[in-house]
Amino acid sequence: MVRFEDISTPARLAEPGEGIGRDELSLATRNHGLPLEALRYDLTPPGLHYVLTHYDIPYAEDGDWELTLGGHVERPLRLDMDELRSYAAVTTRVTMECAGNGRALLSPRPVSQPWLVEAVGTADWTGVPLRALLAEAGVRDGAVDAVFTGADHGIERGVEQDYQRALPIETATGDAPEILVAYAMNGAPLPPQHGRPLRLVVPGWYGMAHVKWLRDITVAAESFTGFQQATAYRLRQEPDEPGEPVARIAPRALMVPPGFPDFMSRARVVRPGDHTLEGRAWSGHAPVTAVDVSTDDGHTWNPAALEASDDHRWAWRRWHFTWTAAIGTRVLCARATDAEGRTQPLEQPWNRGGFANNLVQRVPVHCTGL
Amino acid sequence: MVRFEDISTPARLAEPGEGIGRDELSLATRNHGLPLEALRYDLTPPGLHYVLTHYDIPYAEDGDWELTLGGHVERPLRLDMDELRSYAAVTTRVTMECAGNGRALLSPRPVSQPWLVEAVGTADWTGVPLRALLAEAGVRDGAVDAVFTGADHGIERGVEQDYQRALPIETATGDAPEILVAYAMNGAPLPPQHGRPLRLVVPGWYGMAHVKWLRDITVAAESFTGFQQATAYRLRQEPDEPGEPVARIAPRALMVPPGFPDFMSRARVVRPGDHTLEGRAWSGHAPVTAVDVSTDDGHTWNPAALEASDDHRWAWRRWHFTWTAAIGTRVLCARATDAEGRTQPLEQPWNRGGFANNLVQRVPVHCTGL
Repeated sequence: MVRFEDISTPARLAEPGEGIGRDELSLATRNHGLPLEALRYDLTPPGLHYVLTHYDIPYAEDGDWELTLGGHVERPLRLDMDELRSYAAVTTRVTMECAGNGRALLSPRPVSQPWLVEAVGTADWTGVPLRALLAEAGVRDGAVDAVFTGADHGIERGVEQDYQRALPIETATGDAPEILVAYAMNGAPLPPQHGRPLRLVVPGWYGMAHVKWLRDITVAAESFTGFQQATAYRLRQEPDEPGEPVARIAPRALMVPPGFPDFMSRARVVRPGDHTLEGRAWSGHAPVTAVDVSTDDGHTWNPAALEASDDHRWAWRRWHFTWTAAIGTRVLCARATDAEGRTQPLEQPWNRGGFANNLVQRVPVHCTGL
Repeated sequence: MVRFEDISTPARLAEPGEGIGRDELSLATRNHGLPLEALRYDLTPPGLHYVLTHYDIPYAEDGDWELTLGGHVERPLRLDMDELRSYAAVTTRVTMECAGNGRALLSPRPVSQPWLVEAVGTADWTGVPLRALLAEAGVRDGAVDAVFTGADHGIERGVEQDYQRALPIETATGDAPEILVAYAMNGAPLPPQHGRPLRLVVPGWYGMAHVKWLRDITVAAESFTGFQQATAYRLRQEPDEPGEPVARIAPRALMVPPGFPDFMSRARVVRPGDHTLEGRAWSGHAPVTAVDVSTDDGHTWNPAALEASDDHRWAWRRWHFTWTAAIGTRVLCARATDAEGRTQPLEQPWNRGGFANNLVQRVPVHCTGL
């Protein structure tokens, strides 16, 4: 008899020096990040936006999809895709980042999806404001959480489940951010891996909140204690702590690595002279107000030019900086600061899940006259 | 002074038990495979087709792109994108597979892009037949190779290079297969990671032949001995052999893993009863004529139903098979055979590059009544 505990083991940390395992590689070959040179695009081209799927991508077509909205409401709703598209639509440009971004650089390394720094992307999402649907259903007094259920099904740490996450009812019915029940990405129906035909988009929050393949919203009069809320996506130093929930995206700047790479080592090479360093910066807490660049591994910093956000409050901002390269090896860094004064650490902010880690990116670059 | 040999080391094999390294992970997070559940689609949805980029994705827009065609020809050509689009267009559905697919399952493991089995995808490619351009330029007597140069630039095993590959002139001017200089994928301009704005498509050949970001074609009166032709992409048992070149795709069948997964181990779970196993099968040598399924790790085999190819000679064919699952663990396999009698081995066909390996896929599945 197969027992779930035989195939679904507890979370663990890698041993010192332990290479990436077959399990982590299986996730890395399925899910994928943004190749950092694609930070050049305001809007991430299709297929380059990061993707993380916990289980399998469900096979779904528009025709037979229904969203139910029930629980602690006056008038439960059942809506097909045509009905959802008949509501006034809102389009928002959103930079989305996986809560586990940067995990594989941590020491010790939490064994899970092994992101380096590339789990990010920006898209225009179109859909119905969640608060409009909740208003139509009539949230009853005493509501605490709105619980979102996706069609993706699997086992995680021994628990068989549909993917489910909740938002506090004040967040779900609020407009800061304006949460979308989205059916289009960059003007086209959602690709399968981004939730076809329907997903939640929660601007400013890490990716785990943006429930894909959304099929049900249940308003609850009690706090949701499902696996992805109470067990996963918590900031813990020790396994038995309750931990703080992961929510909004910490500020981060990323750089397009300059020059050209070695295929295997990915080491970067430039020729001597001026190079425009460029990249993007974002924060889910407050607008990014400054990006600083270091060309000496974080010892000294200089301000980068930060471009206008064009009123895309929830999207990354482009920055650039001119660097005069001389023969030798330098470590380049960029650091974002937001309007609430949050910035990025030079030492890793470690937790057992490897979540919400916004350690400054380090890009070693070799300048050669060859 | 930085020397290329310090940052660009020779090819090597992993030690027994050596985990995936940071270098291999850096490739795995950038490049990505087809999540196997997406074998359900005839045409791979955008973003799910496998991608392998040797260096960086060049930043290119249509407007200023030019293709030059010169060398051993009567009338050198220089064509912009509008001129290329003015030729009679051909659209072909092509299943493309990376030559290194399956590499990370080999023992010993060649250290490179660590694919498991998922480096495949199918798309409709539209462009100008290569032979039409070569005919217009007038290939001169004594031509041996057509050399294709991409805009992607990097270092590989100590050699700085633009990505370049050649085809024998008889192949380049022939129509078996009809080779395309392609500017559209699934009816839309090429996405950046698939070669925007122009790439070669060589139906039936592994991915290394389909040069992306194509900017030059040079007809040569001597055999091309560039890195990607004479050093890389050769089948070798020992490092100093010349080796046979990698060319056409060996037959392969892949299965959509049935049931649902565990997040971390990717172990598969099904309930007892009937399950439709399904997948795709392809060969670059000759049409696939049979797919067989084993539910006992390759000891016994039964024929699967193979669906019509709808005249898409160069695309995969869907197959399906009904399996009645009973409590316990089984290893499922599928095996393709083509019209020339080529099939897939149960023991690994090993070479130092991990190329053209079409080992039968093994999918362990746990059937539980829980």
